[in-house]
Amino acid sequence: MSTDDLVSLRRDLHRRPEPAWCEFYTTARLVDELESRLGDDLDELHVGPDVIAGDHRMAVPDEAELTRWLERAREAGADEEVLESLAGGYTGAVAVLECGEGPTVGLRVDIDGLPREESDASDHAPAAEGFRSEHEGAMHACGHDAHATIGIGVAERIAASDDFSGTLKVFFQPAEEVVGGGKSMAKSEHIADVDHLLAIHIGLDHPTGEIVAGIDGFLAVRHLEAEFTGESAHAGGHPEQGRNAVQAMATAVQNLYGIPRHNDGKTRINAGVAEGGSAANIIPDEARILAEVRGETTELMEYMDRKARHVVRNAAEMHECEVSFGVGAEAPSATSDQRLVDIVADVAGETAGVENVLERDELGGSEDATYLMRAVQENGGEACYVGIGTDHPGGHHSATFDVDEASIDHGVDVVSGVIERLGRGRP
Amino acid sequence: MSTDDLVSLRRDLHRRPEPAWCEFYTTARLVDELESRLGDDLDELHVGPDVIAGDHRMAVPDEAELTRWLERAREAGADEEVLESLAGGYTGAVAVLECGEGPTVGLRVDIDGLPREESDASDHAPAAEGFRSEHEGAMHACGHDAHATIGIGVAERIAASDDFSGTLKVFFQPAEEVVGGGKSMAKSEHIADVDHLLAIHIGLDHPTGEIVAGIDGFLAVRHLEAEFTGESAHAGGHPEQGRNAVQAMATAVQNLYGIPRHNDGKTRINAGVAEGGSAANIIPDEARILAEVRGETTELMEYMDRKARHVVRNAAEMHECEVSFGVGAEAPSATSDQRLVDIVADVAGETAGVENVLERDELGGSEDATYLMRAVQENGGEACYVGIGTDHPGGHHSATFDVDEASIDHGVDVVSGVIERLGRGRP
Amino acid sequence: MSTDDLVSLRRDLHRRPEPAWCEFYTTARLVDELESRLGDDLDELHVGPDVIAGDHRMAVPDEAELTRWLERAREAGADEEVLESLAGGYTGAVAVLECGEGPTVGLRVDIDGLPREESDASDHAPAAEGFRSEHEGAMHACGHDAHATIGIGVAERIAASDDFSGTLKVFFQPAEEVVGGGKSMAKSEHIADVDHLLAIHIGLDHPTGEIVAGIDGFLAVRHLEAEFTGESAHAGGHPEQGRNAVQAMATAVQNLYGIPRHNDGKTRINAGVAEGGSAANIIPDEARILAEVRGETTELMEYMDRKARHVVRNAAEMHECEVSFGVGAEAPSATSDQRLVDIVADVAGETAGVENVLERDELGGSEDATYLMRAVQENGGEACYVGIGTDHPGGHHSATFDVDEASIDHGVDVVSGVIERLGRGRP
Amino acid sequence: MSTDDLVSLRRDLHRRPEPAWCEFYTTARLVDELESRLGDDLDELHVGPDVIAGDHRMAVPDEAELTRWLERAREAGADEEVLESLAGGYTGAVAVLECGEGPTVGLRVDIDGLPREESDASDHAPAAEGFRSEHEGAMHACGHDAHATIGIGVAERIAASDDFSGTLKVFFQPAEEVVGGGKSMAKSEHIADVDHLLAIHIGLDHPTGEIVAGIDGFLAVRHLEAEFTGESAHAGGHPEQGRNAVQAMATAVQNLYGIPRHNDGKTRINAGVAEGGSAANIIPDEARILAEVRGETTELMEYMDRKARHVVRNAAEMHECEVSFGVGAEAPSATSDQRLVDIVADVAGETAGVENVLERDELGGSEDATYLMRAVQENGGEACYVGIGTDHPGGHHSATFDVDEASIDHGVDVVSGVIERLGRGRP
Repeated sequence: MSTDDLVSLRRDLHRRPEPAWCEFYTTARLVDELESRLGDDLDELHVGPDVIAGDHRMAVPDEAELTRWLERAREAGADEEVLESLAGGYTGAVAVLECGEGPTVGLRVDIDGLPREESDASDHAPAAEGFRSEHEGAMHACGHDAHATIGIGVAERIAASDDFSGTLKVFFQPAEEVVGGGKSMAKSEHIADVDHLLAIHIGLDHPTGEIVAGIDGFLAVRHLEAEFTGESAHAGGHPEQGRNAVQAMATAVQNLYGIPRHNDGKTRINAGVAEGGSAANIIPDEARILAEVRGETTELMEYMDRKARHVVRNAAEMHECEVSFGVGAEAPSATSDQRLVDIVADVAGETAGVENVLERDELGGSEDATYLMRAVQENGGEACYVGIGTDHPGGHHSATFDVDEASIDHGVDVVSGVIERLGRGRP
Repeated sequence: MSTDDLVSLRRDLHRRPEPAWCEFYTTARLVDELESRLGDDLDELHVGPDVIAGDHRMAVPDEAELTRWLERAREAGADEEVLESLAGGYTGAVAVLECGEGPTVGLRVDIDGLPREESDASDHAPAAEGFRSEHEGAMHACGHDAHATIGIGVAERIAASDDFSGTLKVFFQPAEEVVGGGKSMAKSEHIADVDHLLAIHIGLDHPTGEIVAGIDGFLAVRHLEAEFTGESAHAGGHPEQGRNAVQAMATAVQNLYGIPRHNDGKTRINAGVAEGGSAANIIPDEARILAEVRGETTELMEYMDRKARHVVRNAAEMHECEVSFGVGAEAPSATSDQRLVDIVADVAGETAGVENVLERDELGGSEDATYLMRAVQENGGEACYVGIGTDHPGGHHSATFDVDEASIDHGVDVVSGVIERLGRGRP
Repeated sequence: MSTDDLVSLRRDLHRRPEPAWCEFYTTARLVDELESRLGDDLDELHVGPDVIAGDHRMAVPDEAELTRWLERAREAGADEEVLESLAGGYTGAVAVLECGEGPTVGLRVDIDGLPREESDASDHAPAAEGFRSEHEGAMHACGHDAHATIGIGVAERIAASDDFSGTLKVFFQPAEEVVGGGKSMAKSEHIADVDHLLAIHIGLDHPTGEIVAGIDGFLAVRHLEAEFTGESAHAGGHPEQGRNAVQAMATAVQNLYGIPRHNDGKTRINAGVAEGGSAANIIPDEARILAEVRGETTELMEYMDRKARHVVRNAAEMHECEVSFGVGAEAPSATSDQRLVDIVADVAGETAGVENVLERDELGGSEDATYLMRAVQENGGEACYVGIGTDHPGGHHSATFDVDEASIDHGVDVVSGVIERLGRGRP
Repeated sequence: MSTDDLVSLRRDLHRRPEPAWCEFYTTARLVDELESRLGDDLDELHVGPDVIAGDHRMAVPDEAELTRWLERAREAGADEEVLESLAGGYTGAVAVLECGEGPTVGLRVDIDGLPREESDASDHAPAAEGFRSEHEGAMHACGHDAHATIGIGVAERIAASDDFSGTLKVFFQPAEEVVGGGKSMAKSEHIADVDHLLAIHIGLDHPTGEIVAGIDGFLAVRHLEAEFTGESAHAGGHPEQGRNAVQAMATAVQNLYGIPRHNDGKTRINAGVAEGGSAANIIPDEARILAEVRGETTELMEYMDRKARHVVRNAAEMHECEVSFGVGAEAPSATSDQRLVDIVADVAGETAGVENVLERDELGGSEDATYLMRAVQENGGEACYVGIGTDHPGGHHSATFDVDEASIDHGVDVVSGVIERLGRGRP
């Protein structure tokens, strides 16, 4: 394995970002990489409903959307057999490497992109170097292309390693951006025997060469989808006959952002999508808000959720609209176990290219890796969420987000080193 | 010609509503009807850029949208040759019947549908009787299917009439709903020699059997499209780094509806479409409002326009967003000439099935027929806008709008009668 | 009587504007004028509860406010005996002149000021010429000082006239600005025998020298007072514990102005007073909106009222506040009778200084003279509301409103002329 | 000194709460207590401009307000000579006790009330036991009555103590609630030689019997006052002529509360007072917002301040109003020195009635004691802010706030103990 290999893989994934539950091309490509790179060292490879407990999927798009992306994957040359097994949005994969007696170590990487347009500015590297997103309105704006690549790199490294005795499971998780995939993977059978779970994230405002051994401060999160229904009317002839769903929506947006801060800790609200109406001359009878609330604790998230629903309900009623709430995705908070944090810090300190190691930092965001972390911890195991620094020009989720590809190696090196340490039985 | 013929035509058009500038199937179908019904009596038939002065088109959708509807029309079996001539959104047609010496009478009917979902309630006749819109998100919710049908019926009637001496031009105008088509037809050469122009509208809260001889009170209208650009950020990690385009949009909507009423007369504002954002966890960096302003006079419309832009600009600036305004469609007000109104009232009073004739009423809405009316009037001709009553269960532009098909005959009878009267030189 | 007299009276009243139900000095001064100018010609003079049917008073301020103004009137030298009869806010007066056999003619003038600061700009005549309001926050910004003066002038003129046979009753009505006084005077016994009622208003955008014989288009009006109660909290320490009444109020204001225009006619909404909170560091637990709604018809006013309450109720509930509504003042619409309009037009046409006579115009505002007009009309009499043009630099209710004092004579001349005509039995 | 004495003093102060810079009665009463209780032990007593560096006063009310409260104090029997020295709002006092060689220890207590109505519920002790506020709209809702009382208690105790060698200065500081007084006292000469400064606060959600040795987490705070000026108009006749200051204010309020949370730490915003307009029928031409912004650091406060001004400016401009900003009060953050915290914890642990000692807690609010703390620290001294637990039924600043009077003794005991420890030279 050479670094160039991994960079090339990352760029291919970057070029084809797929949103939550639509990672058809991505999964097929990862399957292909695993099979070709690991060969016989790949003891098991699971895809489809086997790795995704269907009842626990959240925020799955509708059939038409799934089909649209499946078609794209097919056109891009994804393996037909793999695609078949993913039908209906059962994306993601679990790779298993049995390397002798020893603990079962899990590595969780997420693989989905975001529904946003990528910058085409000349100083945005993917645009300048020709691997900008080919999918209009979709982008790897959070580095999951690098995460998936690190997952492949670690599997390849461990397969070739003499220093690990135990079992490695790599969880390629779909649908993190909608906090929709973590729970279903946590509810699959594959997590049950994991003794140590590592999850990683690149960037997070840490520069290339910096490692955060244990990240905490995951905000509990919940998505709310509100659909307003009013009554349309001719905007010129009878404005008084309408019940204006866009007015309801705008009133809700204004007041959602006005929910009081809470003294007990961080809270968040975002009306990430707000839309309604169909034509200039029709009083709008339909509108929709897709919002998310977060809290430093579940209680704080529930506080925001309760307030948000209350605001939405009264904004609807004010404009004589009905409103219904969709079932939203959510994820809890979690903490990194100290023993693993110490090991990560120790290994990172010895890793070439790593110039600075922070023991702890706060995420300030949310993650559904927390479902897997909690599952392992509830079974008596340990979990740790590791930050891999990377210079990123734009912020996460912005149009100019990009990673410094040097950090892919750092990720592979540190994670592999930790796995080896765990598998030598002398953490 | 039998009534059943016309009803069947109207239902076919109803089943395939096409929005502004996308009336490909509709135009092709109308061409086919004209040719098959009139045969040699059809002296000229103009379609394409010949009837649409391209520089004056307003609110034309983008290429992709045009192509999408063109494909649908093709799939529905529209004549390929006609489609070719309409390429690029030059929809609509002008039919000319030369019936001897005499005045040139114009009849203008509009043919486009609206971008809104049609009701599928069991008491909504089109749903119950199987001619509900086949196009998701599109609907003939303003009766233009009936207008186009009346245009065909009148042409057929006059072709067969012995009582008309002169020339009849029927203008099948596209894109009325976006007030985008009237001006381009008024700027084509075909309007230049029209001595008397009739335009019609069905419904308008008048019941079946009622005719309004002359409609006035057209509100001057203008469409405004505002695009907000902010900056995205991770909604959990760095909300403070965003510049939230949805907040700007919501603030604008709230304050647009709050523009003060004006003592000089009617004003209107509608934020008919308001939308922004891409995902729950991204601070939205893009949003859009498609609004319209109206006024009883052009001055009042300009008052609303000025205030609306001011609100939008400051809402954007408040949330540190940029905003740009698209070129919007517009239409002036107009009045019906008394001499024509008198003739219409007279003819209507003698028409079977017409139980009540109102001399005048106010539209309370806008219309780009006003461009054609003004063009004729400025050339020294006369114009009149006639209301054809019809029982309509839902209001105009609502999901349950429908027409009483009996009124199609009333329209054909009254309009044909007026044309004959004008062509006998004894108005 | 000389014009200078009247100008001097008007300026004294202007200097001491008193808000609704607090016209203590004003009433006492008018009583004094009537007694000194008319002497024995003044047959009856009624003040206090006799002219104000107490149960029908609306929008009476609280005891403290009444007392404050009563004290000021006392300090300004108002007659103690008159003040006593006005105690509790029974302001206003009815003067009766019996001049022989004939019809009873009523003249209604209103006498209250507005709660607003007057301009002290050097080009504002009252400021420049030393008769600007002496009462901070109060101003004759609608010309009622001139109305009261015209009432005195007419009484004096008729007392001296040989051309009037009948009874004249001048109603000096309090509390028009809060539409609170008209009803109570209409419910007093004094209106019962009036055959012809004249009411006047100066200005209304008509220049000096113009008379509007009959004003119509009175908007029905109702005042709404909403009190929000939330819960206070320390704004720094526990913002989440508050229930913010100012947020509720602001949400209500934004959405009140957003109530849809109505196609059936004019509607109005104004949140004229909106206030809440007590200190920067306390989450506000109290707020208040004093609003008014108007409509071209009572139905339209009721439409606005219903929508406004609905908005307020939901804004309160959205922010978990309680809200209660106070009993608001209101007034209906009314029309001027054609026979009186004709007489006014005729007399005005013959009056010196009157250069232009309009038969009809719309008020576009509200008036509780409508209560008296309707009372007379319901008794079989006639009523007419006359506009007396005056050049006014600022708009009505603005800080720079002022009247051209030349128009006071026009008012006296025209009104007296009409009364004489009515009293000669040959209208 | 008995506890009863202090309770009686506290209740008298509670009965006469005076807002910032109006603590005339309070100061006079404290002066009287000091003189009568301490007699010759009171070495110096400073009042008036001597203790208040006038240039640094912030948020001083206008002359009329000052005079109104001065009159009330006079009527309540305050000493005329003291009142004279306080004229113009130079309230507060500094008492100096020279007790031999040793360090100079400062104790800062604040003495002002809040502009809010006190509850008259039967379960609110001050109402039930007859010492509820006698001043409508004013209340000791934050325990400063107890603070002042503790200041007196400590002075008396130290005067009588044999265990203190050094100088004690008690700073009775005015105007804390508007963060307006701390700076001016910190800029007076009296703080210059203080070696150790103690400040106290009662309550803060800590129960009776609990002491917080060192409080931190003071939020930096700034007050913003925005005055909107629009243009009035007749709300019925010409709504379009107004420039509505209340609409501007409401738009500002809605968007102020919508300023994004900041990931770097706590932020706060409160539109504590928002008001405008004068009458229901006048488009409001004036409105005002008194807001405060806070941040966990000065940078965060500045972030909020910048955003808030931006919102206000654009809300004004949106509604074509002018806006001007008043000079607002502000206070920085500060920290308690560990050496003093240790001493307080140690002394508190030995104090009767104290059941629980917390080393540190966060205030979560703001305080202008920070000016004095920083002044001492910059001179090389130490400062510590001590929390005295008290059971309080309602939250701080709420209508039902009250203190458990048992905690007054705890305050006196702990603070006196710490002073003695400092004065024995063996901390």
